[in-house]
Amino acid sequence: MGSVDQRTIDWDDGVVVLVDQCALPGEYRLLRLRTVAELIDAIQRLAIRGAPALGAAGALGVALAARHGVNVEGEAERLAQARPTAVNLAWGVRRALAKLPSGADAVLAEALAVLTEDEELCRTASGHAADLIRELCPRRPLRLLTHCNAGRLATVSWGTALGVVWHLHAAGEVEYVLVDETRPLLQGARLTAWELADVGVPYRVLPDVAAASALARGLVDCVVVGADRVAANGDVANKVGTYGLALAAARHRVPFLVVAPSSTLDEHTPSGDLIEIEERHADEVTSWGGVPTAPAGAPVFNPAFDVTPAELITAVVTERGPG
Amino acid sequence: MGSVDQRTIDWDDGVVVLVDQCALPGEYRLLRLRTVAELIDAIQRLAIRGAPALGAAGALGVALAARHGVNVEGEAERLAQARPTAVNLAWGVRRALAKLPSGADAVLAEALAVLTEDEELCRTASGHAADLIRELCPRRPLRLLTHCNAGRLATVSWGTALGVVWHLHAAGEVEYVLVDETRPLLQGARLTAWELADVGVPYRVLPDVAAASALARGLVDCVVVGADRVAANGDVANKVGTYGLALAAARHRVPFLVVAPSSTLDEHTPSGDLIEIEERHADEVTSWGGVPTAPAGAPVFNPAFDVTPAELITAVVTERGPG
Repeated sequence: MGSVDQRTIDWDDGVVVLVDQCALPGEYRLLRLRTVAELIDAIQRLAIRGAPALGAAGALGVALAARHGVNVEGEAERLAQARPTAVNLAWGVRRALAKLPSGADAVLAEALAVLTEDEELCRTASGHAADLIRELCPRRPLRLLTHCNAGRLATVSWGTALGVVWHLHAAGEVEYVLVDETRPLLQGARLTAWELADVGVPYRVLPDVAAASALARGLVDCVVVGADRVAANGDVANKVGTYGLALAAARHRVPFLVVAPSSTLDEHTPSGDLIEIEERHADEVTSWGGVPTAPAGAPVFNPAFDVTPAELITAVVTERGPG
Repeated sequence: MGSVDQRTIDWDDGVVVLVDQCALPGEYRLLRLRTVAELIDAIQRLAIRGAPALGAAGALGVALAARHGVNVEGEAERLAQARPTAVNLAWGVRRALAKLPSGADAVLAEALAVLTEDEELCRTASGHAADLIRELCPRRPLRLLTHCNAGRLATVSWGTALGVVWHLHAAGEVEYVLVDETRPLLQGARLTAWELADVGVPYRVLPDVAAASALARGLVDCVVVGADRVAANGDVANKVGTYGLALAAARHRVPFLVVAPSSTLDEHTPSGDLIEIEERHADEVTSWGGVPTAPAGAPVFNPAFDVTPAELITAVVTERGPG
């Protein structure tokens, strides 16, 4: 079924290999990264993104550093701070770093275990979410809506929110998926649409602000998204736009599911208002592919994520089942 | 104060002259249109848009047709149907066409009266809205948020929602305006930002989906938008995204004002669900400036407008005051 089992990020003979998500959907290209500095650059320009994939990147980055053997803890710390919102990046770094006393091979083995586990957790969590949707939504075939990209490109393989689609599609239960384009960097239009086309699931791309119209018109049975961090009280940080989408879903009594591996749960952050939200560059908003979209030098408000209060979320589903 | 008193659309020696809004913000360019067919083309590709400006275009188009004197009523009918959602276009056509029995000069005089009235109505309506904001919002200076473009470019001059900003800015009462970029055609980032920069009002452009974050963070005292059609029950059709914005404003108890001339009120449409919503081309969503934003041939859901229920709107303000 398409390429959903192929790895988005992996280790190959001393090098971290990953799909360059800045080049999609135009080109499917692999990057081969030899240093932590190269990996941090790839993370910051979003060549790789998605909370679970960042967990894998964190672990593999420590394996790179351990192999070179110079200032491993300092490199690991820089890597953990490359992006502030997703909890998984620092989690992956910590997991691999804990094996450093046992040597570089032990670090690599732990990093590879993170990758294998992520694949299993994604399949399991998305399977639980698919079962929950079957319970919650009587209509067949199902009409789903998602925001950003929570597919195999956001994880090691398979995906979280899109993993739900693969389970349901394999059972012939999906009519279509509506895909929020996800401004400003269009991870929905570029990456999620590409994954759905690859697998052959019918889809339509929409401007993010048209999602409320789709919900109001009764075109959606369930909204399914991923998460970058889930606070202890169940508030969810995810790609900016998730909060408004949850408000509209609640208004129209459409179930709103968050699917994520349990590494996304952050018991140390009591509530969503305490989650640091990354603010990104103005040029993400003021131009596209070199073509200006606003007056030159226009100032911008560009938060990468927002926080959805737990009360708007039907369930956060992990590999353990609905929370 | 900037160019807010300059006309966006006017009559000049037998020709309809209008600002080409497809060229902004890169270039300020005038189009000179000699036939109804040219005017319809300009309307359909959004070289001119905005409900009050379309009212003026409808009236001036009938003046063009009357001057040529061939199949005036047929031309007027085609013009009235060039875009379905804004009620003002057909209203402007009807007003000018009613003078046809008195001859082409009478039609032109009526069209020019529509333009002068629109300028006066915009100033009056936006003045009422500015007064209402002063009552509703205690904080000074004010932090406003708007969606799409309801400025002088959406009207004959001055504007509706942005007209409110001009009144308040002239009194030194505006801290900043947050401008939704307004996908897919970016009327906020391209046109509203250009108007605000022209007048010297501090502003920031944001992805539409970041507006809910701005509201949640307490960065907005009042939301002000225009309208394309107001149903008899107070439901408002406006640029897609208005509905979701109103949901977020209501959640955070931020006043949500709609400013429009009374020609936007449609007493013949009982409620918003009966308003025809224009669906526009996929390529508005799948590319920008010739650069693809989605897989080639991606199917799209692209409604141009949405409907905001009256219960989410603090007030619809016309030249008669708050409704």
